[in-house]
Amino acid sequence: MNKLFDRRKFIKSSALAGASLAASSIGLSESILKPFTSENDKTKAKLLRVGMIGTGLRGRSLLGVLLKREDCELIAIADPDPAAVEATNKLCQDHGKKIPVSYSNGNYDYQNLLNKEKLDTVIIASPWEWHTQQAIEVMKKGIYTGLEVCGAFSLDECWRLVNTFEETGTHLFFLENVCYRRDVLAILRMVREGMFGELIHLEGGYQHDLREVKFNNGKQPYGGGVEFGEKGMSEARWRTKNSLCRNGDLYPTHDTGPCMKWLDINRGNRFTHLVSMSSKSKGLHEYIVKNGGSDHPNAKLEWKLGDVVTTLIQTSRGEKVLLSHDTNLPRPYSLGFRVQGTKGIWMDVNESLLLEGITKPHEWTPAKDFLEKYDHPLWKKFEHKAIGAGHGGMDYFVVHAFVESAKRKQAAVIDVYDAATMMSITPLSEQSISFGSAPVPFPDFTRGKWMNWKPDFGMGEDF
Amino acid sequence: MNKLFDRRKFIKSSALAGASLAASSIGLSESILKPFTSENDKTKAKLLRVGMIGTGLRGRSLLGVLLKREDCELIAIADPDPAAVEATNKLCQDHGKKIPVSYSNGNYDYQNLLNKEKLDTVIIASPWEWHTQQAIEVMKKGIYTGLEVCGAFSLDECWRLVNTFEETGTHLFFLENVCYRRDVLAILRMVREGMFGELIHLEGGYQHDLREVKFNNGKQPYGGGVEFGEKGMSEARWRTKNSLCRNGDLYPTHDTGPCMKWLDINRGNRFTHLVSMSSKSKGLHEYIVKNGGSDHPNAKLEWKLGDVVTTLIQTSRGEKVLLSHDTNLPRPYSLGFRVQGTKGIWMDVNESLLLEGITKPHEWTPAKDFLEKYDHPLWKKFEHKAIGAGHGGMDYFVVHAFVESAKRKQAAVIDVYDAATMMSITPLSEQSISFGSAPVPFPDFTRGKWMNWKPDFGMGEDF
Repeated sequence: MNKLFDRRKFIKSSALAGASLAASSIGLSESILKPFTSENDKTKAKLLRVGMIGTGLRGRSLLGVLLKREDCELIAIADPDPAAVEATNKLCQDHGKKIPVSYSNGNYDYQNLLNKEKLDTVIIASPWEWHTQQAIEVMKKGIYTGLEVCGAFSLDECWRLVNTFEETGTHLFFLENVCYRRDVLAILRMVREGMFGELIHLEGGYQHDLREVKFNNGKQPYGGGVEFGEKGMSEARWRTKNSLCRNGDLYPTHDTGPCMKWLDINRGNRFTHLVSMSSKSKGLHEYIVKNGGSDHPNAKLEWKLGDVVTTLIQTSRGEKVLLSHDTNLPRPYSLGFRVQGTKGIWMDVNESLLLEGITKPHEWTPAKDFLEKYDHPLWKKFEHKAIGAGHGGMDYFVVHAFVESAKRKQAAVIDVYDAATMMSITPLSEQSISFGSAPVPFPDFTRGKWMNWKPDFGMGEDF
Repeated sequence: MNKLFDRRKFIKSSALAGASLAASSIGLSESILKPFTSENDKTKAKLLRVGMIGTGLRGRSLLGVLLKREDCELIAIADPDPAAVEATNKLCQDHGKKIPVSYSNGNYDYQNLLNKEKLDTVIIASPWEWHTQQAIEVMKKGIYTGLEVCGAFSLDECWRLVNTFEETGTHLFFLENVCYRRDVLAILRMVREGMFGELIHLEGGYQHDLREVKFNNGKQPYGGGVEFGEKGMSEARWRTKNSLCRNGDLYPTHDTGPCMKWLDINRGNRFTHLVSMSSKSKGLHEYIVKNGGSDHPNAKLEWKLGDVVTTLIQTSRGEKVLLSHDTNLPRPYSLGFRVQGTKGIWMDVNESLLLEGITKPHEWTPAKDFLEKYDHPLWKKFEHKAIGAGHGGMDYFVVHAFVESAKRKQAAVIDVYDAATMMSITPLSEQSISFGSAPVPFPDFTRGKWMNWKPDFGMGEDF
């Protein structure tokens, strides 16, 4: 394989090509391929020194997994909210772990964390609008970066993440947990074993009634009122204004991530273009009127986010992906996955499948037995550890993969190119909708390297 | 209401405005509002004289319903295939009915049927490419027209149907049977009673593994070989070439029809524009290779129809509709309906719903009890007659509505504007796909009259 196109090695070449940084300063050498620990020297293994920026509910949920591990040490945290710091400290105590150094003197105190602490890795779980800036600063420090998911505000952001990685050689792991959902991984095995034939059409959706996340009473994180922004609490403080001001697929990663892994996106395949269409926006207004009265000031607001935004994505191999963003209406939670190929189809909403020559033709068969039979080795191996971790155990796996990758200082299996691709769906869908559902092209964030890269997700025995 | 915009009366005005036809010659008067029969003079009722053009499997399936009725008499049939005529005659004998006059001297012998027979109504169930021409000829004869469903080949066709109706005043009933599916009608009741709140997002699909319809051995209608066209039988003779030559939503009516009725399309609402995206085409080629071998001449063909074509439609009221056309792959039959509004959601693939304030929040509840509770009065009334009719009973209802409308010579509840709208989706989706999923506008086939027309489908007690 051409050196330039080897995912792990090309960084060296491209970094050397960049005048601003010397290879030595960014720690690039063949040693990045060498595991940080191995079976033989586990006892000598030093602890991974972890920092976290943003310790709200999501950050603490990840910490709940991390603090159970014996190979990590939470050194420092940054969050401008004293309550978040306090809750984090309590969480550490509850786990019998040291209280981390805390940086909570305003929004930019995380920079002091980066300057003062000696860290192997930093996890970013701050509000969306801070993700890119903070990830770039962490990467520039040469600290292995774990980035919580979000959609981007502009394509420029996505390019800056990619460029920073290519300039610094610091790896970024995009913490898309649903890629590790048990059925998602079982279906990945089935896809790779050809059970569905050649893939044709995939679906996914972030279909989650978030009305009690977007609004609360300022005293509890979920519901109890119709406040947001300054008067809201937790996510309602920062997330909700996106629904007020923007119309697009605002949160595309939980559905797109698995589809990308099934389709080898950025590893032999890529997204070429999309179209998005939005319904009208009625759900949030109705919710406010019903729960806060028509006289409540928020009842006057005009919400931009269509209640259901649908996006169609074409791939270079000719498959297509259908995404739904559906967070303003009463509905059951459903990621609505569908994997369909020339030999079969699986849907998660009815937990059923059809496999030609295996199950009865023209009929749905319960997927359960197949999902068990094709259970991924990682789930078999780590199920006992995943029990109790957030989101049905998937949080264990994404944290585990991140930590093991960081220990080995090796390329992320959900990397900065995947982050840029997933995050770009948000501004691209906004553009498409604003132009009356016109098709808009995906940038090729890999600059052509996707043609040579090979699938690497879910391949290893360890993570 | 402005006379011009009354569905039943405007015909008179517009016909009078047209110089080519005198009002008297097309039988337009207030009498079209008067029932052909009433409860009081049933005994005097003359039989509805029916002709049928196209007596293949679909035509005979409709006849199976029609011949059971005591208010209809099958006078004449036209089909160039002697076997179809023979089978029809046998069907009539089996029902104890008279053998109809038959016209089978080539493709155009139906014109002799129209010229020689005295008919009240003609049902057209010929191959798609004959629909428009034949419907126009029937309408021009002033014969109440029943048209089997299909997609159009061009927008011009759709306009010609509308223009012919407006010039002749002859009603056309578009025989979209799924509008009468039991759950579809129950959901219509629930929609009208506000159970789903304001509608936001709808889905439907023609998701039907047609590989054994598209290919057979020339001796049986379904499967047994990989032949089509001249060497095929039944639908494979004429339908399959559309998959070879065209890429779009080739058969949009079974999913669109119910969505149009739920959304009051052409009656207070209209489709404004659509985008379509197609996957690659692999399913039919794989089927041929698997069942006919890679040396079979048909294995060399390049099929244009993408295996899954997805279409997004926007409405003037701001809802959107997602349609799937999925006929080349192994899969269970599913029309994939979803009705979602500000107060709830129903999906047919998992036969479940959520209704805010009624069912448990954030959870699917089986739809069964609600579908029974909101069973449509027509189903309650005619269930005993519908048993055994094609497609789960819905064929009984569409034939019943057609016959009763024809007897009364009154406007169809699935009319020529609905036909034009549904049929236009095919060429519009082809256009969108050929322009890389660009948005394309729907013509307003009502020329603005949709703003004044009111819903009329499923409102009556009789049909």
